[in-house]
Amino acid sequence: MTSAARTIDLNADLGEGFGHWRMGDDDAMLDIVTSANVACGFHAGDPDIMATTFSRAKEKGVAVGAHVAFPDLAGFGRRSLPMSAREIERAVAYQLGAAQALAALSGHRITHVKAHGALANIAERDADVANAIARAVRGVDPSLALLAIALSEQTHAGARAGLRVVNEIFADRAYMDDGRLQPRSEEGAVIEDIERACARVRDMLASDGLRTISGKRLPTQIDSVCVHGDSPLAVEMARRLRAALEGDGWKLRAFAGA
Amino acid sequence: MTSAARTIDLNADLGEGFGHWRMGDDDAMLDIVTSANVACGFHAGDPDIMATTFSRAKEKGVAVGAHVAFPDLAGFGRRSLPMSAREIERAVAYQLGAAQALAALSGHRITHVKAHGALANIAERDADVANAIARAVRGVDPSLALLAIALSEQTHAGARAGLRVVNEIFADRAYMDDGRLQPRSEEGAVIEDIERACARVRDMLASDGLRTISGKRLPTQIDSVCVHGDSPLAVEMARRLRAALEGDGWKLRAFAGA
Amino acid sequence: MTSAARTIDLNADLGEGFGHWRMGDDDAMLDIVTSANVACGFHAGDPDIMATTFSRAKEKGVAVGAHVAFPDLAGFGRRSLPMSAREIERAVAYQLGAAQALAALSGHRITHVKAHGALANIAERDADVANAIARAVRGVDPSLALLAIALSEQTHAGARAGLRVVNEIFADRAYMDDGRLQPRSEEGAVIEDIERACARVRDMLASDGLRTISGKRLPTQIDSVCVHGDSPLAVEMARRLRAALEGDGWKLRAFAGA
Amino acid sequence: MTSAARTIDLNADLGEGFGHWRMGDDDAMLDIVTSANVACGFHAGDPDIMATTFSRAKEKGVAVGAHVAFPDLAGFGRRSLPMSAREIERAVAYQLGAAQALAALSGHRITHVKAHGALANIAERDADVANAIARAVRGVDPSLALLAIALSEQTHAGARAGLRVVNEIFADRAYMDDGRLQPRSEEGAVIEDIERACARVRDMLASDGLRTISGKRLPTQIDSVCVHGDSPLAVEMARRLRAALEGDGWKLRAFAGA
Repeated sequence: MTSAARTIDLNADLGEGFGHWRMGDDDAMLDIVTSANVACGFHAGDPDIMATTFSRAKEKGVAVGAHVAFPDLAGFGRRSLPMSAREIERAVAYQLGAAQALAALSGHRITHVKAHGALANIAERDADVANAIARAVRGVDPSLALLAIALSEQTHAGARAGLRVVNEIFADRAYMDDGRLQPRSEEGAVIEDIERACARVRDMLASDGLRTISGKRLPTQIDSVCVHGDSPLAVEMARRLRAALEGDGWKLRAFAGA
Repeated sequence: MTSAARTIDLNADLGEGFGHWRMGDDDAMLDIVTSANVACGFHAGDPDIMATTFSRAKEKGVAVGAHVAFPDLAGFGRRSLPMSAREIERAVAYQLGAAQALAALSGHRITHVKAHGALANIAERDADVANAIARAVRGVDPSLALLAIALSEQTHAGARAGLRVVNEIFADRAYMDDGRLQPRSEEGAVIEDIERACARVRDMLASDGLRTISGKRLPTQIDSVCVHGDSPLAVEMARRLRAALEGDGWKLRAFAGA
Repeated sequence: MTSAARTIDLNADLGEGFGHWRMGDDDAMLDIVTSANVACGFHAGDPDIMATTFSRAKEKGVAVGAHVAFPDLAGFGRRSLPMSAREIERAVAYQLGAAQALAALSGHRITHVKAHGALANIAERDADVANAIARAVRGVDPSLALLAIALSEQTHAGARAGLRVVNEIFADRAYMDDGRLQPRSEEGAVIEDIERACARVRDMLASDGLRTISGKRLPTQIDSVCVHGDSPLAVEMARRLRAALEGDGWKLRAFAGA
Repeated sequence: MTSAARTIDLNADLGEGFGHWRMGDDDAMLDIVTSANVACGFHAGDPDIMATTFSRAKEKGVAVGAHVAFPDLAGFGRRSLPMSAREIERAVAYQLGAAQALAALSGHRITHVKAHGALANIAERDADVANAIARAVRGVDPSLALLAIALSEQTHAGARAGLRVVNEIFADRAYMDDGRLQPRSEEGAVIEDIERACARVRDMLASDGLRTISGKRLPTQIDSVCVHGDSPLAVEMARRLRAALEGDGWKLRAFAGA
């Protein structure tokens, strides 16, 4: 085994407060992850939170991406809004540009784009929406990486647009046999047992494939593992997953550099 | 007279609708002006209106800038919000980045930044705010021009930040003896007579200086004339001013290229 | 003919501006209609516009209702948002209460509730949503009338909730054979010919029934006719419809008093 | 001692979340206070949070009021917005009506109004703004109590408007010699020592007067004590203050009934 030579990225969603409200322990997560997906003001985040998050990420050597979403503060971007592909393309470009500017102001640099919440769920299976996101990224800056759910339409759309596509798996979400995430509303969709979550990730990384709820393996390249930080338990899971991966000899490193 | 060799820019505020609402006749104005200041979603504008405005400006060879403002849709950016210089700097960067991205998506390119409404009024005389705007522009893209009210703090702040500063005069606003715009609330502050507005502009351009309400001349370089397009009368004034300037031998051209 | 003894209401959507933006000619419409559906800040309207609209309606003897909608300024309430029946119930109550308070402050009184845009379209055929709206109205003030699209689920839901239901027809919209409005996206859905619109309304009122695109008659009580005022043509249609109805001997009067 | 016969109200600000964000431990506070000031969607709160808060307050026998504020989600209502007295009057009425409707839908009833944040700070000393708030309350429902900072302009404005005025003191805020709250930006303005906070309140209640930072006593009727619940420490302070007051023989009861 030469996995010691391989690198993997850990990514998390940060900057998810708004005004006086906060969500999650960003400082703790910035010590664990290698890439941060930063909310751009549409589902969470505001210029001050964005700038602060970019500055701290820069200090800690964490790469940053624009976490783009439906314009839905009230629903935290988890509701599917009836927008056309054209409207989505423009909304993504708007958020991406705003994030690039605030990263620049903070001495950092956006190196990837990731879809959040309902937008990500739709882009997982809807080629039109996945293409709209990819077009926005290419139109604004074709050198950016697209952080996509492994085996999703986003992977194909990013490739078609000539973008660098980075595939992620989720540490705490179950996969169905078609490779899609089990809906949160279903029993077992979210894995709260830290040991089991770590074991799953190690298994998937070692086998270069998703492991579904029935035990099937779906081969895919895996470039990043998404962890959550919105609860003390989630932060602990992220910390232990990082330790477990380092124990396996993985080198933790941002796919896009930081 | 060699003024025939000189060039001047005509600028106007465009893209000031939101959702289903519209303001002004943007199509008419794009046939008259050489530079457009496009609302960025904080006082007006949304990703669709922005993209459409950039596309049309590109088609008609009109240069575009980010028209940055306080986050105040309800007040159209005309109310002074209690924000710190740091918050203003970040809000300006956010809007500028969003505009750059949507311009890129539309095949165009932002070449200047202009403050709108209450933000412009404050930046006219408050060096801290003027510096905050200039820092935001420099931090995001130091090659951009800053379109500033002639003889304002913005002119100085832009120079200090190493930005290219472009000075504008207003076709339809009276100047006080200290060089500031007469407040809209005062009688005579807004000039509605087209003949008189055109004569004033021609006089100021010919003499390289502001002409105040008492007849005083305040020397200044003038790079652009701001015209309005939010009423049929305003569009007519813009059209006739352009014709008058061309009659005087001025070449109408965007200060920043288009 | 004894139709001279009968009364009919003309209603229109007013107060559809926001901040500095305006839509339609409210003053003209207040001279034509007998009931006004006033936007409550979710799809359009703000406290100042609401108060001003209620004051003018009071002066002109026009009855007022709360025009409740999805929270969607950017989409003018014409997009269907993914909200549960419970969330809709609460959103409707919120808007209704706000409208009642501002009407009281303006010396007027809300006497009906009407759903706007996408919320109305869904409530036309979805009993859960129609019930949610009816529950909100009953919970806040059971003496209010529910202005419903004739032959819709709203009519049934209002009756189940023990509310007074008032049925409206549309002057300028075509009906399909199942009694539903033809979608705006289809050819012929919106009737722009004033003569034809007036003839249709007179026919439907005289026959106590909807007339569908195939000529079928669907019997229904008709208490109000909805007219639009968002364009000069629409205002002219409303004016001529009122004159035509008066010529037929109808007495124009708000169903709820004013 | 006959203080056993006297009653006092404990009030706190609740429902201060928005969408997926939360602030403070509302459930804990509802077991401690007798009156709750519920955010109405302008600085915090949304229809779902409002309805839930009203329902729980009803279950626990806690009286509810509308906590009205500037329209400023991004600043949590702590920024002074440049609004005219007329605009403030309408904004207050809007929020109050919305709260009344959602309370009714939840089986509860609004019995008081309190200004939040910057609006309260301004109304403490600006008679025009204090009058605007009082006019809004009287115009919407003159039977409501106005919960005012003791010895403020609000007390006078409420009396002029014929409203029942209820005076509050703050458990954890220092008073200056003119009776105003010491600005939060100054050292010592916020009292974090629980023992000291309890002692102060007991002293002020026993002496029917404010005790200022220099030891001066400013006589005033005191009807309610405001406590905070936005941190575990704040909840603990509220709990111990309630116990201390009960130990002194005070009967804790909402000034307006519940």
